[in-house]
Amino acid sequence: MHASGVWAGVTPLEEAWNLADIMNPSTTTKAELQRHGYLGELTCSSASYPLGAHFELHIEQGPILEGSNKKVGVVSGAQAYRWLTVTVDGRDAHTGTTPFNARKDPLLAAAKMVVHSNELAKERGALASTGVFKLPMGSSTNTLPAQVVFTLDIRHPSHEVVKEIHSKCIEGFNKIAMEDGKGVDVTIEVETDSPEIKFHPDCREAIRKAANAVVGEDGSMDIMSGAGHDSVYTSRICPTGMIFVQCKDGVSHHPTEYCSPEDW
Amino acid sequence: MHASGVWAGVTPLEEAWNLADIMNPSTTTKAELQRHGYLGELTCSSASYPLGAHFELHIEQGPILEGSNKKVGVVSGAQAYRWLTVTVDGRDAHTGTTPFNARKDPLLAAAKMVVHSNELAKERGALASTGVFKLPMGSSTNTLPAQVVFTLDIRHPSHEVVKEIHSKCIEGFNKIAMEDGKGVDVTIEVETDSPEIKFHPDCREAIRKAANAVVGEDGSMDIMSGAGHDSVYTSRICPTGMIFVQCKDGVSHHPTEYCSPEDW
Repeated sequence: MHASGVWAGVTPLEEAWNLADIMNPSTTTKAELQRHGYLGELTCSSASYPLGAHFELHIEQGPILEGSNKKVGVVSGAQAYRWLTVTVDGRDAHTGTTPFNARKDPLLAAAKMVVHSNELAKERGALASTGVFKLPMGSSTNTLPAQVVFTLDIRHPSHEVVKEIHSKCIEGFNKIAMEDGKGVDVTIEVETDSPEIKFHPDCREAIRKAANAVVGEDGSMDIMSGAGHDSVYTSRICPTGMIFVQCKDGVSHHPTEYCSPEDW
Repeated sequence: MHASGVWAGVTPLEEAWNLADIMNPSTTTKAELQRHGYLGELTCSSASYPLGAHFELHIEQGPILEGSNKKVGVVSGAQAYRWLTVTVDGRDAHTGTTPFNARKDPLLAAAKMVVHSNELAKERGALASTGVFKLPMGSSTNTLPAQVVFTLDIRHPSHEVVKEIHSKCIEGFNKIAMEDGKGVDVTIEVETDSPEIKFHPDCREAIRKAANAVVGEDGSMDIMSGAGHDSVYTSRICPTGMIFVQCKDGVSHHPTEYCSPEDW
């Protein structure tokens, strides 16, 4: 979504060019484009390179088509999501000599927050997920860490529900922060906020008709995209639609990702 | 406890010498002893260097003396502890496209296990603590990791209670592993198991009498050591006792550790 963000005027060109490898800050997008001979001369923008419409074919990256035995997904839009970074500050302590009532244990509190966010999301038919959970270097079996930083990715087809869960997380996390020992401090920052996208009705209709012709009326279904895609950005500028096909076990971004030649 | 373990015949000399820096495997205990001129000629053993009795003065490393307004702790012994490494295996997945019922989320399961072990320990007046919680490199905000490894340090004055909590953790963790989505796999390994130690009654009595003479009968109290100490090993060979003094806020192994000259 890097280039489509620049094309749609959402991401400034310099910001995209300067994005660096997380492991090696001298490796930037621009340096790699140059190295591979891909730094072209045409300005990357919808003005200099306009599109009349945008259709994107993609694997579903989830198990819904496979589980429903449908060959084609007519993507209605992309769900809303908000990414949070939660920092829980406590105090290092020796695990053997520090009674529970004297602790400021950020790891216990963070574990409770992860569990609580999952419960809140389940109640509302949303998703809440933690993919990063970091402790300072040097924490060990017999010490409590001073800090835990974790991410929270909240998703739902409606931005309103995402905001509601975020707000309930703030309330719940602040309560959890006071529950054990001498309490911990919690700060919650919003890293990314993306409202839901609805694709163009003409594009959806065109995809539905084409699917009916190829796989029959029982072969396709309407589906919401769980992930972000280039089409999220192009939909701001021109009529856009997406076509999903099955991938094995819903797996993506992994060596076992597979889409059969027939499905593609 | 490295050298006292060798002295007491618990740790083989070669094992102690070969212990390497976690960051730099070529830096071993033996190499560092040589470099500093501390590699002596006397054999490190209770046979070649016998002790009639062993008394050890130490900061409490906890808040109990300070909270009870006592100047001296007559240490009755060291509590039992068991260190576990828990490995939770799931499957990487995209957070946006993978519904809860299709996930094998090791981080959610591990968070629930940390919370559960804390509840089990609280019920029995024991301690359960997690100081290490590791995810594979490369996990990110919008992916679930494939694996989480965390440590569990269980402590109680009685080894029987430690074993009981360990056994309840196995039961509870296996149940948690099946609770969400398609489940996760959990394996629990015992890294260290140390039964409780009782110090010698003559040594404890000698310390109590001396404390009474210096700080008065109201100035001291019996106390259990939460941490391991050299005295745990010497107590296997000769009569042993320990004296605890206050440290500020119970903090140790930290730049803010402080014991007043008067207390010492």
